[in-house]
Amino acid sequence: MAGPGLLLAARCSALVPSASLSRASLSPLCLAPLSSTLTTRTMRAVHVHCVRARQHHQHRSASSSTAQQPPSASRQLPHVVVLGTGWASHRFVRDIDHNKYHVTVVSPRDHMLFTPLLTSTAVGTLEHRSIIESIRATASERHFDFQQAQVTDIDFDNNKVMCQSAVYSNDEEPERFPIPYDFLVVGIGAVPNTFGVPGVKEHAFFLKEASDARDVRRRIHDCFEAASFPMKTAQEIEDLLTFVVVGGGPTGVEFAAELTDFLREDCTRLYPHIQHRPRVILLEASGAVLSAFDSSLRQYALRRLERQDCHVRLGRSVKEVKRHEVVLDNGEVINTHCIVWSTGVGPRALVKSLDERYLTENKQHIRVDRGLKIANTQNAFAYGDCARIDGYILPAVAQVAEQQGKFLADEFNRATPQREVGCDTFKFASSGMLAYLGHYGGVAKIAVPTPDDVTNVKLSGLTAWLVWRMGYLTKLGRWRNRLQVPFDWLKTMIFGRDPTKF
Amino acid sequence: MAGPGLLLAARCSALVPSASLSRASLSPLCLAPLSSTLTTRTMRAVHVHCVRARQHHQHRSASSSTAQQPPSASRQLPHVVVLGTGWASHRFVRDIDHNKYHVTVVSPRDHMLFTPLLTSTAVGTLEHRSIIESIRATASERHFDFQQAQVTDIDFDNNKVMCQSAVYSNDEEPERFPIPYDFLVVGIGAVPNTFGVPGVKEHAFFLKEASDARDVRRRIHDCFEAASFPMKTAQEIEDLLTFVVVGGGPTGVEFAAELTDFLREDCTRLYPHIQHRPRVILLEASGAVLSAFDSSLRQYALRRLERQDCHVRLGRSVKEVKRHEVVLDNGEVINTHCIVWSTGVGPRALVKSLDERYLTENKQHIRVDRGLKIANTQNAFAYGDCARIDGYILPAVAQVAEQQGKFLADEFNRATPQREVGCDTFKFASSGMLAYLGHYGGVAKIAVPTPDDVTNVKLSGLTAWLVWRMGYLTKLGRWRNRLQVPFDWLKTMIFGRDPTKF
Repeated sequence: MAGPGLLLAARCSALVPSASLSRASLSPLCLAPLSSTLTTRTMRAVHVHCVRARQHHQHRSASSSTAQQPPSASRQLPHVVVLGTGWASHRFVRDIDHNKYHVTVVSPRDHMLFTPLLTSTAVGTLEHRSIIESIRATASERHFDFQQAQVTDIDFDNNKVMCQSAVYSNDEEPERFPIPYDFLVVGIGAVPNTFGVPGVKEHAFFLKEASDARDVRRRIHDCFEAASFPMKTAQEIEDLLTFVVVGGGPTGVEFAAELTDFLREDCTRLYPHIQHRPRVILLEASGAVLSAFDSSLRQYALRRLERQDCHVRLGRSVKEVKRHEVVLDNGEVINTHCIVWSTGVGPRALVKSLDERYLTENKQHIRVDRGLKIANTQNAFAYGDCARIDGYILPAVAQVAEQQGKFLADEFNRATPQREVGCDTFKFASSGMLAYLGHYGGVAKIAVPTPDDVTNVKLSGLTAWLVWRMGYLTKLGRWRNRLQVPFDWLKTMIFGRDPTKF
Repeated sequence: MAGPGLLLAARCSALVPSASLSRASLSPLCLAPLSSTLTTRTMRAVHVHCVRARQHHQHRSASSSTAQQPPSASRQLPHVVVLGTGWASHRFVRDIDHNKYHVTVVSPRDHMLFTPLLTSTAVGTLEHRSIIESIRATASERHFDFQQAQVTDIDFDNNKVMCQSAVYSNDEEPERFPIPYDFLVVGIGAVPNTFGVPGVKEHAFFLKEASDARDVRRRIHDCFEAASFPMKTAQEIEDLLTFVVVGGGPTGVEFAAELTDFLREDCTRLYPHIQHRPRVILLEASGAVLSAFDSSLRQYALRRLERQDCHVRLGRSVKEVKRHEVVLDNGEVINTHCIVWSTGVGPRALVKSLDERYLTENKQHIRVDRGLKIANTQNAFAYGDCARIDGYILPAVAQVAEQQGKFLADEFNRATPQREVGCDTFKFASSGMLAYLGHYGGVAKIAVPTPDDVTNVKLSGLTAWLVWRMGYLTKLGRWRNRLQVPFDWLKTMIFGRDPTKF
């Protein structure tokens, strides 16, 4: 057991006065196993890290007199290293008591991305920065550390993570350094799943990060500009204005819907010379779009999409993606210059590199118990898309991750020498599902609590769209974004979408 | 002479009914010299261009019933090809009478950039897209054509420009096509001038385009993130937080001022753990910053910059720029990871490639007369930073370019068979100068008309800053930007600058 009580007694690595720091003085629990393998350079890194952590806490003592109780500079807090800045980690670092733990977040991404609105930024309904929340800003408010680095390896036995710089580097080679931890929380998410289809990585766009959405937006407008060149044949124009979306899940459907909005509302205004009607083709391998919704809502979504001129092709999977072609399983070829791929997620390289003791059987996820503790560890936890609870499979969606982040933060906050972190069990309570279908319409399944239980209310059309907008607006974490998002919506309504690229 | 009257009589290339289009039917003035060199592919391009121009005009007839008098579909308009989307061209295409001319804008950039506020976007006071105006949106409102392409060659003898696709391309090779013209207007601007200093192109940032500002903003935050790594020595942190600005003109000074604002207002909030104080060093080879201003304002600017912790080094030029070093003329070396270079402008490759008949003696500019007509041509004009009027040297600033654009548009609008374009002479009337100096201060020299003449009013401090903000706000062309810019200012004031990168 490695509860904070034990750690507080044993002293953690974060707050050793620098003058007294030596290998001999390091806590056996935290760093003794490390010492045998540490080189001079890494020792220096650990040393500097400890000194800086102390400076940081001194700064906190000086500056956080109102918002939080200032921890005594001499108080020794357990060091919690959090990997990732997604839904789960973001909620975790906001909820954990920073007077009780010294938290360091490590992530190659310096922001939390409000993923449900990412498809809106891919066509310019919203701006990219409007749905981004700076982790630096949160870190400065909540007083935790942030390292913009990629974790390349986790050493569960020696309680450290190996990091590699994710920013512009001093040297030609990215810098590497270890970070020791007392508790580790892994929330590194997942990567788009190509299902091994050849050509997807090379020629398709994903919708996972803000930069993906920027690339898609750029390509859409590039296609229209290329179609505007004087030498183009009708066939070339048709190919340039054929947009293929692969995957009929919420992301694929919402992107297709946003794209039809853009085509209907902006194209005739911006590209009046283009006589050819652009096409959106949505490919879904199963028999239905939005399979997580009820049959009636699925049918409604399908009808609505087709009414907006989105050609939905069910039961069709992709065999190969080429530079300007999508080859279907029946041999059919669709010529296109813009393919957006959103068929689900797979494991990150870091997950795949872990020992199988920590993984699920299929090696796609980190295996955790109901308390989110990683299998065969005492002080490491995982949540979100990278983790799977033994015997309790949940969908890879934002609300699961967020609830797990909250659950784990509560567990840390409640921990005492008698009550270790993760002794409670996580239970997911769905608040419902929403999907935008274009042209002020959507589908929604909302969980409404009743005296006895929870009942699901089904909505469609304009009402669902209003719930969709209001729901997401209230979920945006910061006031900066809560002001900018409706402002963007207003601008789009009045002035249309901005087609510029830079 | 090639006034519109003659062209209307001779028939221009833009509106030939496609069925009747053949080499024999082309106007001798417009295309006959072309025909001897045209290949089948380029003939097809010209053909398609003509067909599309006709479709475009038919569209105009159908859609522009309220805003403008619809030109008859059969009316044959002279074809004006405009190169560039800078200050001059933007004003020109807004002011020219599109019922009298068929205008095609050719530019690799799909937007007009409000350059005076570019330095604000480089630190995040404003967002990049807030100071951009889409040329597609203007084209759809004013009914002109736009080709997002780079002009690689101008054939003044045969009245055509050779274009190369500036967007994502169908093929591995960028597409090429010619555009014939009846009138040509060249406003391609200039490129940053490195004065042949080694290493500048490889290691320094410029502040010329929105993408430059984005790169600078990214690097600034990368430097802070890299300085936050645990293994950094004091010397490494000092180097990472030394920012060098080369050039004491308005761009260099305003960027240095914005940077000191960012350091003062945001750094302690965002990077409280960084104990080292960041440095801004402004290098100017001459004896003064803002040399276009009066001595008293120059002195004020210098004092103010130094009060904000900007180290101004006068009389110091740069001998070499290395990956992490700036070597001065006296052999001194400044270690830095962010160098912004703004020492003036030089000619674009297209200007340098022109025959010397069209250029000034030093081959740095296109030589034009007082009517802005290019030397040794009858139907080609140039304005803005790429042009220089014989015997009437003007500074390379936005207001000169904008006034030239307006002048030339008026000339085109007034042209008749008896009055050719460019028979009037251009005269620059300065409305003054503004420069931001950071911390709500600036300097301004405003030209105020008096009954007899014009008098210059000098302002400094807060008043000049208010004039600076209000002045630029009213100059922003579109309501989209006029709303977004103050909204950005407000957001920065309340929430601070957003440090995220994506």
